[in-house]
Amino acid sequence: MNDGKPPEHDLAALQRRLADFAAVRDWGQYHTPKNLASALSVEAGELLEIFQWMTPEASGTVMDEVETAERVEDEIADVLAYLLQLCTVLKIDPAAALAAKIDRNERRFPVPLHRAAQ
Amino acid sequence: MNDGKPPEHDLAALQRRLADFAAVRDWGQYHTPKNLASALSVEAGELLEIFQWMTPEASGTVMDEVETAERVEDEIADVLAYLLQLCTVLKIDPAAALAAKIDRNERRFPVPLHRAAQ
Amino acid sequence: MNDGKPPEHDLAALQRRLADFAAVRDWGQYHTPKNLASALSVEAGELLEIFQWMTPEASGTVMDEVETAERVEDEIADVLAYLLQLCTVLKIDPAAALAAKIDRNERRFPVPLHRAAQ
Amino acid sequence: MNDGKPPEHDLAALQRRLADFAAVRDWGQYHTPKNLASALSVEAGELLEIFQWMTPEASGTVMDEVETAERVEDEIADVLAYLLQLCTVLKIDPAAALAAKIDRNERRFPVPLHRAAQ
Repeated sequence: MNDGKPPEHDLAALQRRLADFAAVRDWGQYHTPKNLASALSVEAGELLEIFQWMTPEASGTVMDEVETAERVEDEIADVLAYLLQLCTVLKIDPAAALAAKIDRNERRFPVPLHRAAQ
Repeated sequence: MNDGKPPEHDLAALQRRLADFAAVRDWGQYHTPKNLASALSVEAGELLEIFQWMTPEASGTVMDEVETAERVEDEIADVLAYLLQLCTVLKIDPAAALAAKIDRNERRFPVPLHRAAQ
Repeated sequence: MNDGKPPEHDLAALQRRLADFAAVRDWGQYHTPKNLASALSVEAGELLEIFQWMTPEASGTVMDEVETAERVEDEIADVLAYLLQLCTVLKIDPAAALAAKIDRNERRFPVPLHRAAQ
Repeated sequence: MNDGKPPEHDLAALQRRLADFAAVRDWGQYHTPKNLASALSVEAGELLEIFQWMTPEASGTVMDEVETAERVEDEIADVLAYLLQLCTVLKIDPAAALAAKIDRNERRFPVPLHRAAQ
């Protein structure tokens, strides 16, 4: 099941597109895990930059203006791109890693009984 | 199609788990887009930290030791978690954003003809 | 003139201490500009982490608690340490670079006349 | 003593220039510690970006080209600017914080006797 999303929006398909994109341009030589982790950090900074002077309230309306909305989507895409490329190179399944992390966090931060009953 | 992956590893399912996790613990109050973008950047730094003193070659073997492999998977999970939570709050589809970005990059960086024919 | 500060708190003296510290422990091998820039980014993330869930108002009181005050000073020190080590390796004078940058910014962002007259 | 450097390159003088620059343009409203720590992290990412695809060896020659040399100095200045502004707002003496940190590190990482005797 994939919630009706186009198959080409599934992570494995995106990883293949990214790998093909780099391979056919011979960019793989730059894609050491170290460089990919650096690039991911740089893009995370570009995403944060959009919000750096905003109040918390203003940050909530960032998708209301076409220009900032496109900027945010562009940086989200860049962060995800390097995350996926790093996972491809290191043979990590990012969704499985996150599912396992949420499992661990649910044990580390149990819900108080009065809330669980709601 | 989802390549035979468990449906619970699909991004939308992970986004729902993350949203429920925060809601039932009343942590949503902290999840302004500004704070989520900051947290994403912090986690990207923790991921980079694993590699910061490594040579490029050493960075390629980081999954060979159980301890560093688990650390890398944990930080990958944390980066993806904040990316997805930011997307949920801003109503962005991260996979669609990346697919569109790759489309744009394929136009910006066309493959030289001699390579395309390979 | 150095405002009555101890000479050992002057940037050049700190740079010498940092260089001696690394040299006598044979850590210079790790201090390529690339690695130092990565480490600086990682420490900047550790500094940001202290503030990531705070409201802007709460961030202003971070020095009121001994524990967070020490954490902030520790990360400030770490960021400055890597900045200075990077400058030593690249033979950059950080204070001169900043003085020149402020000069440029004063030309790029002139003060409106009504303010300049105050 | 200040190694013959111009007094205006001393940290306290730079902090005053930065504070005056922001005050006369009424930019202080944006300078919450949280925002300044974010901006510092963003600039650290811009500095890292210069190196992200370089080999360690190539990173050592970054000051040989005028264009990259100016870019590096510009980002070094930006990182130092936000570090100093954060210190001004939080009333932290960055040089004293670093001197104290080096003292602590000298105790945490004692030099092996055979090296100390050299």
